[in-house]
Amino acid sequence: MNADIGLIGLAVMGENLVLNMESKGFSVAVYNRTTEKVDRFVGGRGAGKNITGCHSIEELCAALERPRKVMMLVKAGGAVDALIEKLMPHLEEGDIIIDGGNSHFPDTIRRTETVESRGLLYIGTGVSGGEEGALKGPSIMPGGSPAAWEHVRPIFQKIAAQTADGEPCCDWVGEGGAGHFVKMVHNGIEYGDMQMICETYQMMKAGLGMSNEEMHEVFGQWNQGELDSYLIEITRDILGYKTEDGEAVIDSILDTAGQKGTGKWTAQAALDLGQPLTLIGEAVFARCLSALKDERVAASKELSGPDGNFEGDREAMIEDLRQALYASKIASYAQGYQLMRAAAAEYGWNLNYGGIALMWRGGCIIRSVFLGKIKEAFDHDPELVNLLLDPFFQSAVDQAQAGWRRVVSRAVELGIPMPAISSALAFYDGYRSARLPANLLQAQRDYFGAHTYERVDRPRGEFFHTNWTGRGGDTAASTYSV
Amino acid sequence: MNADIGLIGLAVMGENLVLNMESKGFSVAVYNRTTEKVDRFVGGRGAGKNITGCHSIEELCAALERPRKVMMLVKAGGAVDALIEKLMPHLEEGDIIIDGGNSHFPDTIRRTETVESRGLLYIGTGVSGGEEGALKGPSIMPGGSPAAWEHVRPIFQKIAAQTADGEPCCDWVGEGGAGHFVKMVHNGIEYGDMQMICETYQMMKAGLGMSNEEMHEVFGQWNQGELDSYLIEITRDILGYKTEDGEAVIDSILDTAGQKGTGKWTAQAALDLGQPLTLIGEAVFARCLSALKDERVAASKELSGPDGNFEGDREAMIEDLRQALYASKIASYAQGYQLMRAAAAEYGWNLNYGGIALMWRGGCIIRSVFLGKIKEAFDHDPELVNLLLDPFFQSAVDQAQAGWRRVVSRAVELGIPMPAISSALAFYDGYRSARLPANLLQAQRDYFGAHTYERVDRPRGEFFHTNWTGRGGDTAASTYSV
Repeated sequence: MNADIGLIGLAVMGENLVLNMESKGFSVAVYNRTTEKVDRFVGGRGAGKNITGCHSIEELCAALERPRKVMMLVKAGGAVDALIEKLMPHLEEGDIIIDGGNSHFPDTIRRTETVESRGLLYIGTGVSGGEEGALKGPSIMPGGSPAAWEHVRPIFQKIAAQTADGEPCCDWVGEGGAGHFVKMVHNGIEYGDMQMICETYQMMKAGLGMSNEEMHEVFGQWNQGELDSYLIEITRDILGYKTEDGEAVIDSILDTAGQKGTGKWTAQAALDLGQPLTLIGEAVFARCLSALKDERVAASKELSGPDGNFEGDREAMIEDLRQALYASKIASYAQGYQLMRAAAAEYGWNLNYGGIALMWRGGCIIRSVFLGKIKEAFDHDPELVNLLLDPFFQSAVDQAQAGWRRVVSRAVELGIPMPAISSALAFYDGYRSARLPANLLQAQRDYFGAHTYERVDRPRGEFFHTNWTGRGGDTAASTYSV
Repeated sequence: MNADIGLIGLAVMGENLVLNMESKGFSVAVYNRTTEKVDRFVGGRGAGKNITGCHSIEELCAALERPRKVMMLVKAGGAVDALIEKLMPHLEEGDIIIDGGNSHFPDTIRRTETVESRGLLYIGTGVSGGEEGALKGPSIMPGGSPAAWEHVRPIFQKIAAQTADGEPCCDWVGEGGAGHFVKMVHNGIEYGDMQMICETYQMMKAGLGMSNEEMHEVFGQWNQGELDSYLIEITRDILGYKTEDGEAVIDSILDTAGQKGTGKWTAQAALDLGQPLTLIGEAVFARCLSALKDERVAASKELSGPDGNFEGDREAMIEDLRQALYASKIASYAQGYQLMRAAAAEYGWNLNYGGIALMWRGGCIIRSVFLGKIKEAFDHDPELVNLLLDPFFQSAVDQAQAGWRRVVSRAVELGIPMPAISSALAFYDGYRSARLPANLLQAQRDYFGAHTYERVDRPRGEFFHTNWTGRGGDTAASTYSV
């Protein structure tokens, strides 16, 4: 009997997805370029299960039920293109190639076109949840050829995480690169969430002098309220974790963060689409700065600053930190949704914003109670321009902002860096400013480059130039073309 | 007699460069796609001068002394490629094509290779200084084919701005795309400088309630000290400018800033090269946010915040603002130089960091007394890792930082957005942190994705994985490949 689906790439994510599919009643054929991994997996974690090991792509394709569904879980980039080229000769019309890796969405747009032009169907899908999510139920965000969806839906929705209400954390996202775009934004938001938690931890540890045990307790409490989420939960666990020898592992880990590129892509897409994703930008840059470990150690001996010790009401500051984290998180998700709105407009996708929140509601790294509130916000108003304007979130920020401001202000005085949390506050204050100082900026640009400006007392689209110096020409830069 | 140089593209920058060259004794042949502009220019601003109008590319190339030097000042992008293709058939070995527009450096790397493969030479050069700089002496940053330099040097160094010591603000930057890269960083820094000034203006106007006349006075005073620079000078002028009817133009200008892409490119290059250019990133995002004018006006009626009125010692706050601006500027240039160092390593360029400061010292938008100090820093230590570590700047930040912290802290309390200045402070505090909270971030990544971590008590390059939950596999993500 042929297998329901094939999977290529038996690293940790691939193995766990296969075991997940098999446990839900699907038969899986597997292949890996280094074929020893196939044998090791089929004879090891996959032993005694409905899993067929294959030693070539041809063998894999021959082992699949039609329309064939072949899912790739390989390193994003050229490896995906090479694999698609190797697969296509062995597939027939209507067969489906699925990319479950962290591909860049422009690549997925291109690959969807290429594969469709050969009579096949393509899906580029985000899969989030890490090692454990892949095994027990990830969040799955598929996009690509709409005709493929009905064929993979039964598998994807069954292996996906389920919310408490029993809804699968998987639905159709949109055409072309929409699935990978939404997954990219998910990862950018994840970068932001992690950075905000780290900044909170830094203030607790360096500012308040809290022990791991104290922080473990606080994050445990926070996980029972508005901040209830996977990342707060694992932060609690990490801070409470000790080896058998009693060593707190967290204190031995080097403070240099790596990155896999999706946070960077989110920031770059934001720049391309002209959307102010300041918090995610700062989160990515914070990882870059962390990587300059040797420079920082050298600089720490040279550069002056406050001593960083907080003196005051510790309990009140801990509650302020909770509010700062909550309010910053709202600002960050507001930015992420802004980016998705801009992308939908740019690429002609119809994104279901509430559905996206639901897909992220379980299974994935950023899963949280919070996302349920975002789902509600879009249920309430599908055309919501910005999350900050939703009554629930508007009120939440209103209540949290005094603590938020105290935290940032105190961090600045203490010399404790909080780039993401302070950037979120500056964004909030900018977003609620009817008037920003960009009038001066436009005056400067018109002064030195004759770039022209619009006026507050004239309709948009009328441009004016002032000959500020009384010298130079009257030629405006708008005529700068041959 | 043939002309010394040809120029294509008679918009404001092109016209003014031609007039500059001619005034320094060079004969110039000019061409423009819309040929009416040629006639209008030669019969108008160029009348009676040593300028030859040409009505075709062929005619232009025939009018030039060999080796021909043809400078393009056209819109960056496809127009440059198209023009190069049109030019090459009319040129001979050793002739030089010069791109004086704001091209993206990867394009310049590619074009240098293409043009050199046809036996010609190529220069991609940054030209900064805007309308007036082009006319009276811009900063010129050429890179590309080294063999071309000796031929264009006499013209470029003569038309460039000259420092007070008589040194030209033009020197060879490096091969390939180095000239346009350095110009790009210049523009990114310019974005940052302008944004910082705008934030200072916002605090003065919205926070301190200062009048244009008061601000005009303050910027005038600042321009006589450490902040002495073109941008402070024109800010002073803009705030003091009134029409004949007595209208302060600054108050009528709409607060939505445009951008030409080079600031965005700088931030994207920083992300690609893994360098934390937080201030420039925030400056670009601030322009994006300014563009969302209608959203902001709507949000201003909904979102709560402090009333923004500063109460306290105004004179002290103005001096704090000066210090905040100065310290942030140091951090921003430190970031910009970090990016150039990373690019030099990535692309194999030998950049003369002090020479770059000298090129920016006059003629261009960011010209300032400050850049002389950067030149001195690199004269003192050509291998300087970070500007913040130079004794002069280290001491300058040390003296300015109390005011810097008061400004950011107060802005946060007042609800006045200062994204760039506060981001610079967070960067400074991060850079001087021997230990950042990225250990927690690495623990999180290892927890959910088995991404492994390094340890503080082990050599770099050794990676560890903890099975935090006691569940899941022991497969580490480093084996995630097929």
